[in-house]
Amino acid sequence: MKLKELKNFKVPGFLASGMACGLKKKEGIRDLTLIYSEVPAVAAGMFTQNQMVSPTVPISRKALKASATTRAIIANSGNANAFTGPQGVKDCKAVVAATAKALDIQVNEVLTASTGVISVPLAVNKITAGIPSLVNQLSPDGWIHAAEGIMTTDLVSKTCVVQYDDIVVGGITKGSGMIQPNMATMLAFLASNIRIDKRTLRRALKEAVDPTFNCITVDGETSTNDMVLLMANGQAGNAPVKAGSQGYKDFVSALTHVCKTLAFKIVEDGEGATKFVTFKVSGAKTRKQAEQIGKRLANSLLVKTALFGEDPNWGRIIAAVGSAGVPILPEKLEVLLNETPLVKNGQQVKGVSQSSLQKIMKKKQIGIAIDLHMGKASAETYTCDLSYDYVRINAEYTT
Amino acid sequence: MKLKELKNFKVPGFLASGMACGLKKKEGIRDLTLIYSEVPAVAAGMFTQNQMVSPTVPISRKALKASATTRAIIANSGNANAFTGPQGVKDCKAVVAATAKALDIQVNEVLTASTGVISVPLAVNKITAGIPSLVNQLSPDGWIHAAEGIMTTDLVSKTCVVQYDDIVVGGITKGSGMIQPNMATMLAFLASNIRIDKRTLRRALKEAVDPTFNCITVDGETSTNDMVLLMANGQAGNAPVKAGSQGYKDFVSALTHVCKTLAFKIVEDGEGATKFVTFKVSGAKTRKQAEQIGKRLANSLLVKTALFGEDPNWGRIIAAVGSAGVPILPEKLEVLLNETPLVKNGQQVKGVSQSSLQKIMKKKQIGIAIDLHMGKASAETYTCDLSYDYVRINAEYTT
Repeated sequence: MKLKELKNFKVPGFLASGMACGLKKKEGIRDLTLIYSEVPAVAAGMFTQNQMVSPTVPISRKALKASATTRAIIANSGNANAFTGPQGVKDCKAVVAATAKALDIQVNEVLTASTGVISVPLAVNKITAGIPSLVNQLSPDGWIHAAEGIMTTDLVSKTCVVQYDDIVVGGITKGSGMIQPNMATMLAFLASNIRIDKRTLRRALKEAVDPTFNCITVDGETSTNDMVLLMANGQAGNAPVKAGSQGYKDFVSALTHVCKTLAFKIVEDGEGATKFVTFKVSGAKTRKQAEQIGKRLANSLLVKTALFGEDPNWGRIIAAVGSAGVPILPEKLEVLLNETPLVKNGQQVKGVSQSSLQKIMKKKQIGIAIDLHMGKASAETYTCDLSYDYVRINAEYTT
Repeated sequence: MKLKELKNFKVPGFLASGMACGLKKKEGIRDLTLIYSEVPAVAAGMFTQNQMVSPTVPISRKALKASATTRAIIANSGNANAFTGPQGVKDCKAVVAATAKALDIQVNEVLTASTGVISVPLAVNKITAGIPSLVNQLSPDGWIHAAEGIMTTDLVSKTCVVQYDDIVVGGITKGSGMIQPNMATMLAFLASNIRIDKRTLRRALKEAVDPTFNCITVDGETSTNDMVLLMANGQAGNAPVKAGSQGYKDFVSALTHVCKTLAFKIVEDGEGATKFVTFKVSGAKTRKQAEQIGKRLANSLLVKTALFGEDPNWGRIIAAVGSAGVPILPEKLEVLLNETPLVKNGQQVKGVSQSSLQKIMKKKQIGIAIDLHMGKASAETYTCDLSYDYVRINAEYTT
């Protein structure tokens, strides 16, 4: 299988658009996104684990269950429509209904997502008034506008599209804060022309999301709204893909590539981020334990501020490993900073100069490897540093 | 029982001192502390839950077990002597030995603590050279110097002393970052002239620490070093105190008062703190669940930055409650901000003006009450906001 990234974002049989309907304060900034499959597609979704959810979450879940086919995703930024009471549910249904009507499809063929400020009533009329124009603007090249329509504090729009054989897999995503691993904690909309059944598609999505979107964190926060949605419309005309087959593996590989690329773009654009940091925890007894330590490291304020300060203060790394709630053997611990050994057999490696470490810390990409030497499981967690700008962005956001 | 705070810090039968031995870069800043009981005392301790610990932790634990009596606490700031390998253990033992020798007491009658940067070898000679002078400076009035000798990023030294009947309970503490609830995550040294047996003392300490030092958090970080130590020397000559008796309750009450006052001082002095925030979670099924939600709220970066920004963005509170890993009933949730109802029966309370909420957010003391309406358990968690200064302090600390 030969996978190549495409420059022009198109997925056969899919149209997309993005426009400004007035939800965002700044005029002309896109805040409404539509993705449409010209033929009935199958779809799968993964949703936030937060118990306080926007009605977009149960409504999209229900639509996925109720209908064998999916045709469209309608999404807005500028307002999460979360914790907005019964009115929020009505508003969400109104958006779905208006989309279904304008596209002449069934209500349950529409999935929906929102992102933005929580607990503010949705200006639903602005959305429903915008939908006919959004439908008119649908085009095979509309993905870039669609990617812009879901941005919140993102500084850049995020897209990725790949091809192997006749199969194209593309996706757009948004997210730069409120990002915590182990669940779908951002909006990502993926589309492929692959022919595949709904059940196998769901399985492929989980396989691709677990080591990618579920392994990133910016601030340890889990949103009320976020989801990953994937549609496949069968336009490639390939032989049906069965779980476990080579065709399935190829698709999962392409899908994982797209998810990982998009997930990394979220971390790179993390609120106030100046570094991209990979924690690789190996030698764990279980993958879950490796993930738990990786997550603890990636969410440690002291580790994150040391990364921002470009300070090779590896004592903070050790302290975070020791407080992750996973039993470890301190005397076996090994730590490497961008391949330079810092700790071996639980002891500081001698002869490593502070200046060489400081040089490494000045890099944009930092890799910190922890080997517990207790088992064979490993996991990678991806994060950014914590800077003044994270505080500024989040102290100033909204009201 | 009539409890009064004393202005002059003295605990009958105890002497204390603090001096600069040269561990801290700035000359003349105190970094070495000694507390001494003129007669054999009983002692109890609570220690960090971090698995990566400074040798001060096992050495103090062992001394508490090995000896029925305790006479002294020797502590340094400027260096945590953590993750310093076998040399760190030797250094720690050398400090204890030098203290025992200078005071002419047994090695196991000495407890020891360190705080400061992790993974840097201890300049043990500076400490052992300073100890004779530190012993010479011991005085009943030396507590203020002792409190200064354990400061790290603390802006102020922290003391509290109370009296009821003939019994005096006093304590000093340090800590402003690396503070996370549910364990002793700072240094606190407590002393009383009460006559009490060692086992009952240990129980009283746990009762006093659980709702105080164990319920504060600054940044969710658990140190490698921290401990709460309590000595009681019997000089009050009271009748022996039995667990559960009125005398026991009075003592626990006084001890809790001192611990709470000191714990609050840590939060007020939290790195970069501009607010003191109390999360009261009630109506939970168990106290543990209430604590878990309180801790999630208190460690949420989005909640903490909203507090710093004086932004009544209560959607972030709701989102944090929903992601604490505790099953809740969203439709029963109630939220109050300094007694102003924000959410009732899971819905926003109408008629609360944004400007009145903003006015509350400008206060120094913010109280956020969450009622889950699912049970009878409750817990309070105390924290501060997250400001630019937290990032500055922790990006610049050490190297």
